[in-house]
Amino acid sequence: MQKRLFPLLTAFFLLAAAVLPVSAQVRHEIGFPDLPDYHTLKCDLHSHSVFSDGNVWPTVRVDEAWRLGLDATALTDHIEYQPHRDDIPTNHDRPFELAAGKAAQMGLLFPRGAEITRDTPPGHFNAIFLDKVEPLAVPDFVEAVRQANLQGAFVFWNHQGWKGEEAGRWLDVHTTLFENKWFHGMEVCNGNSYYPTAHRWCLEKNLTMLGNSDIHQPDINDQTTADAHRTLTLVFAREKSLAGLQEALLAGRTAVWFTNQMIGRREWLEALLEASVEISPPHHRGRDHVLIKVRNHSDIEIQLRRTGPVGPATATLPPRSTSLVKIGTGNPQGPIELAYTVTNFLIAPGEGLPVRLTVGE
Amino acid sequence: MQKRLFPLLTAFFLLAAAVLPVSAQVRHEIGFPDLPDYHTLKCDLHSHSVFSDGNVWPTVRVDEAWRLGLDATALTDHIEYQPHRDDIPTNHDRPFELAAGKAAQMGLLFPRGAEITRDTPPGHFNAIFLDKVEPLAVPDFVEAVRQANLQGAFVFWNHQGWKGEEAGRWLDVHTTLFENKWFHGMEVCNGNSYYPTAHRWCLEKNLTMLGNSDIHQPDINDQTTADAHRTLTLVFAREKSLAGLQEALLAGRTAVWFTNQMIGRREWLEALLEASVEISPPHHRGRDHVLIKVRNHSDIEIQLRRTGPVGPATATLPPRSTSLVKIGTGNPQGPIELAYTVTNFLIAPGEGLPVRLTVGE
Amino acid sequence: MQKRLFPLLTAFFLLAAAVLPVSAQVRHEIGFPDLPDYHTLKCDLHSHSVFSDGNVWPTVRVDEAWRLGLDATALTDHIEYQPHRDDIPTNHDRPFELAAGKAAQMGLLFPRGAEITRDTPPGHFNAIFLDKVEPLAVPDFVEAVRQANLQGAFVFWNHQGWKGEEAGRWLDVHTTLFENKWFHGMEVCNGNSYYPTAHRWCLEKNLTMLGNSDIHQPDINDQTTADAHRTLTLVFAREKSLAGLQEALLAGRTAVWFTNQMIGRREWLEALLEASVEISPPHHRGRDHVLIKVRNHSDIEIQLRRTGPVGPATATLPPRSTSLVKIGTGNPQGPIELAYTVTNFLIAPGEGLPVRLTVGE
Amino acid sequence: MQKRLFPLLTAFFLLAAAVLPVSAQVRHEIGFPDLPDYHTLKCDLHSHSVFSDGNVWPTVRVDEAWRLGLDATALTDHIEYQPHRDDIPTNHDRPFELAAGKAAQMGLLFPRGAEITRDTPPGHFNAIFLDKVEPLAVPDFVEAVRQANLQGAFVFWNHQGWKGEEAGRWLDVHTTLFENKWFHGMEVCNGNSYYPTAHRWCLEKNLTMLGNSDIHQPDINDQTTADAHRTLTLVFAREKSLAGLQEALLAGRTAVWFTNQMIGRREWLEALLEASVEISPPHHRGRDHVLIKVRNHSDIEIQLRRTGPVGPATATLPPRSTSLVKIGTGNPQGPIELAYTVTNFLIAPGEGLPVRLTVGE
Repeated sequence: MQKRLFPLLTAFFLLAAAVLPVSAQVRHEIGFPDLPDYHTLKCDLHSHSVFSDGNVWPTVRVDEAWRLGLDATALTDHIEYQPHRDDIPTNHDRPFELAAGKAAQMGLLFPRGAEITRDTPPGHFNAIFLDKVEPLAVPDFVEAVRQANLQGAFVFWNHQGWKGEEAGRWLDVHTTLFENKWFHGMEVCNGNSYYPTAHRWCLEKNLTMLGNSDIHQPDINDQTTADAHRTLTLVFAREKSLAGLQEALLAGRTAVWFTNQMIGRREWLEALLEASVEISPPHHRGRDHVLIKVRNHSDIEIQLRRTGPVGPATATLPPRSTSLVKIGTGNPQGPIELAYTVTNFLIAPGEGLPVRLTVGE
Repeated sequence: MQKRLFPLLTAFFLLAAAVLPVSAQVRHEIGFPDLPDYHTLKCDLHSHSVFSDGNVWPTVRVDEAWRLGLDATALTDHIEYQPHRDDIPTNHDRPFELAAGKAAQMGLLFPRGAEITRDTPPGHFNAIFLDKVEPLAVPDFVEAVRQANLQGAFVFWNHQGWKGEEAGRWLDVHTTLFENKWFHGMEVCNGNSYYPTAHRWCLEKNLTMLGNSDIHQPDINDQTTADAHRTLTLVFAREKSLAGLQEALLAGRTAVWFTNQMIGRREWLEALLEASVEISPPHHRGRDHVLIKVRNHSDIEIQLRRTGPVGPATATLPPRSTSLVKIGTGNPQGPIELAYTVTNFLIAPGEGLPVRLTVGE
Repeated sequence: MQKRLFPLLTAFFLLAAAVLPVSAQVRHEIGFPDLPDYHTLKCDLHSHSVFSDGNVWPTVRVDEAWRLGLDATALTDHIEYQPHRDDIPTNHDRPFELAAGKAAQMGLLFPRGAEITRDTPPGHFNAIFLDKVEPLAVPDFVEAVRQANLQGAFVFWNHQGWKGEEAGRWLDVHTTLFENKWFHGMEVCNGNSYYPTAHRWCLEKNLTMLGNSDIHQPDINDQTTADAHRTLTLVFAREKSLAGLQEALLAGRTAVWFTNQMIGRREWLEALLEASVEISPPHHRGRDHVLIKVRNHSDIEIQLRRTGPVGPATATLPPRSTSLVKIGTGNPQGPIELAYTVTNFLIAPGEGLPVRLTVGE
Repeated sequence: MQKRLFPLLTAFFLLAAAVLPVSAQVRHEIGFPDLPDYHTLKCDLHSHSVFSDGNVWPTVRVDEAWRLGLDATALTDHIEYQPHRDDIPTNHDRPFELAAGKAAQMGLLFPRGAEITRDTPPGHFNAIFLDKVEPLAVPDFVEAVRQANLQGAFVFWNHQGWKGEEAGRWLDVHTTLFENKWFHGMEVCNGNSYYPTAHRWCLEKNLTMLGNSDIHQPDINDQTTADAHRTLTLVFAREKSLAGLQEALLAGRTAVWFTNQMIGRREWLEALLEASVEISPPHHRGRDHVLIKVRNHSDIEIQLRRTGPVGPATATLPPRSTSLVKIGTGNPQGPIELAYTVTNFLIAPGEGLPVRLTVGE
């Protein structure tokens, strides 16, 4: 009925909508470099819109992803929970359909996703790279996950310990999923929470580590910075495509960026550190010391603690900056062996990444 | 059907929702002082949600208003235009109903509003302080405005010149509304636009001047500052209540804050300036000059141009700061007469507010 | 000789210097309110210029003090240590003389000061409100302090533990000074360091607590904020004058602002808290809770931990903001008794300020 | 005498000074990329210390240069003007000597400099790459410049129009210097001032264009950003060394960064633009438009105005960001020819840099 009353207006507003909103047009890239053989994709694979319990229209998540420098994002509205249902009738595939066009325009990877939302335990699971969300809306939890896998989805266990370790314990049903290879990863971090148990299980069971925002409100950040960033998953992909993203996730090539910490398998943290840090040869040699410049190209502050005999006891390399480091040494003319632990690059719960390097050869 | 499958979840999520989201809890007050007899209410009376063409859930506008230091805000979704209608069936009163509880919890004034959205001309009109939006959804434009007035609404003409002066011209229909006292004000500013014609008409016809954001996207500002603020209406109200707000709007006691300019009737700009600026007596008297401290308590940068014989030719008083001003004078011992124009306090299009003051008596 | 070569230039440059540098003209006041009977003076009473081991011309400290919202500051160059002596011959009273005129122009309190700089132990002592620094340049330490007292100076022990507790221990010489009332306070905080031993001694021996920057480099802050502020002494003075400052210091009416902590005697912290925080009566009463607004007018983040039965377990009141606080209560209609500790208002080492209040009577 | 009284202190303080001050250690690089054959050196070749009319110790300029991302800086204290002479006896070579060691430690290029400061006209001239400043302190202006040239200095005319065009006019004495090749460049910009006459003369007479801060006060910026940067000279050097810097200055390979404008010869602005901007091929082709991503790696906001038939009428590429640009076109499948003027890259007074490019081949 409304339609008939005001037909001309529609034409007008569609015209206006053809211009991309200004706030969506400018993007600040996140400062994590590519690795020698891989693109470093910045991904947030867990978010919500008004179609479940989020507070924004689906396209807002795409605008945010562009603005904040993400390469990939997913809307994962709850299948089983729609508190706005009285106003927005359930339509599981609709958020993706509304936002996918804009994501394509912006060149963002935007896998179709959903959150399989059962009681905890067994907990919530995200499925992404779906063809269709609707088939997952079935009463049985395992069947829902199976349906996701039938579509070739990548499935991960969200925020394992959010309701406590007891509620987040590993049950038979998890073993069933795991043995069938029906789930492939876990959120080690979700929003402001870190789950060391999930971290350990990922290492023990060779599950992919993820970190996501699980954002429900509008994101009021203008850009991503070390001080104000979403919890993200860095995915090291052979190509920047949906297929490339999926292959890398299945292969476990990830690192999680969480409140000034980087969490992941040793090999990927090592590679990321090497790509991020540039050490210049000594430009000044004193009687008993040398001075070197250390540039941190990345967006994480790198925190170092000495484990070897020379160099400052601790050092901090702020994001996107160059630090002047003075190394006292008995022999300022020869090469200098440095041994440190990167205390905020976690290769296991509580265990920093060890690094050794030689400068001034 | 969904309801039956997952009954337990609802209880859980409602529990979580009982905690106010963190981002909504901290508020930064806007720095415009009360006047001797009036509360200075900071108001944005034009905004949109997903229920018309906005991109946020209605409660988001309330969270934003709290965070940004507003005292009053209104959701004014289009009555005649709902591009999300396929997903959110038309329900004109729903945005208000969804958000009013939260507004009350936060102590915000939240009049029920709607935008009567016809072609331009005659243009769009906001009605606020409605009892019910639904009765305004009628085919005839004048009838819609009349219905709003039957409910005692305050009605104002939005963004008069947004489609050009020709489209924004004064028609017989406007005369009809005006002579019936069915509309009471105009947006002199809307978002990033200023309408000098509207400004003139407000002065000539004694219409209330308003400035609003007309925001559709999420507001990414964390707080209101001189550099990043919504276009707002300052309303000088006898009491901080819906009735007080309405009385002041009808009485025309407003000023519009727009991109580092304050627009309004001379008497209110004078009163606002006087309340905002504190001049200390000369604390230093040199041979041929005195030094005074001028404190600007407000959130607007005040720009001055000398019209009298003494004092600096121009001066700028940054927001929330104290400026040291050196006044050259032939007689540094006696009182000093200063005459200036506040170039960014507009009492008419292109006309700054003249001020005279005596210091050092 | 130079003078004769280029006589005309001097006239030109003096002309230019008559205009106050722009950066010095704008000032942002620090947000600590006055107490009912006292002005709250923001003071940094320990700083250095090129005349000892600082890196700026004396007037820079005055420009900085103005810009950063200080009410009083002192240059306290080392009497016994001038590393720039080869270029700037020793002249103990010169820093004050060079900067005092500018301080007067800006209306800043600027007592003449110096740092009596002996080995540690016995440590460094500042003397302020001197008439002349030169008489303090004597070989004997006690005699130097006595000379300061002969001039009516306020004398305090700087950074007691900076070289360790052993070096900062209380010696007979301190007893001598103390018993003669030749020193009157201690720096509880200096720059980024806090000295709990000094804190305890101030409480036990009724010495005035001070906190100062001891700044040597240029201050690159544009204004004072909670996140970037000098360590300061708040002095609660009967009048804003040198005499008022001195009387308050001798009377011990101070609080020390140090890295988001306020340190001082209980009575002054209580008074400062009361003046800083404004609690509105409940504006919303639910079935089992009330909502109140708590406004923190000050520049310190106030951190609270519940010690009574009702209210949130912890709460943080960010600087210059209003927080919405939900208080669960069995009886939402009557008055509510709240008991908290302000964990970052220290009335003794490790001991927060207890507060009790009733809302909603 | 002082030395004898307190011998032990010196040892202690020297120890403390061996640790580099924290504020000096972190550096944010300025975002202008190298050119294919040249290093892009960021240079400020005009600054002052307490040894003339500046307000900081010479080493402060080195700390600032490091922190702010400069590659080269020069102290150029006035030879003929020392307002602090009563406290700091004239010693023309001392500022360099005091700061050169720190510059070397930090790996900064730090040519010895001085400002030959005569009345205007003929104006002030900087000489850098001096061996010794003292020989320039002679009564005759031309002789002073000749002395600089005898040392192989690079000499440039500072702030030509600062006292008006009449005072800044070209005199016989300038012709003398020019014909002898005794001066080699001009400041087109100095601090906040731009001199179009100097700009024209540089183009006509093949003089090197420079832009410098002429800073006297401490620099309170923590890092260089588009919004808060010193006026700088970008020098395109074959190698990052004093010799490389000098060769490039003599060869005129410079651009001046001034308040969001880049000023220079067309060839260097073209090369800088090309190195700064990265255009991705169309990632989205609509029916009548394509979308491209344009990344601006530099620290200047690039402002574009269309001169050809397709593309947006104007476009702004913010610093260090990626912009999504929609290009309407009749043929979205083929290559698209774009023609624009970069309005804030000035190849002559008032004349922007024209650019043409083809996307989507």
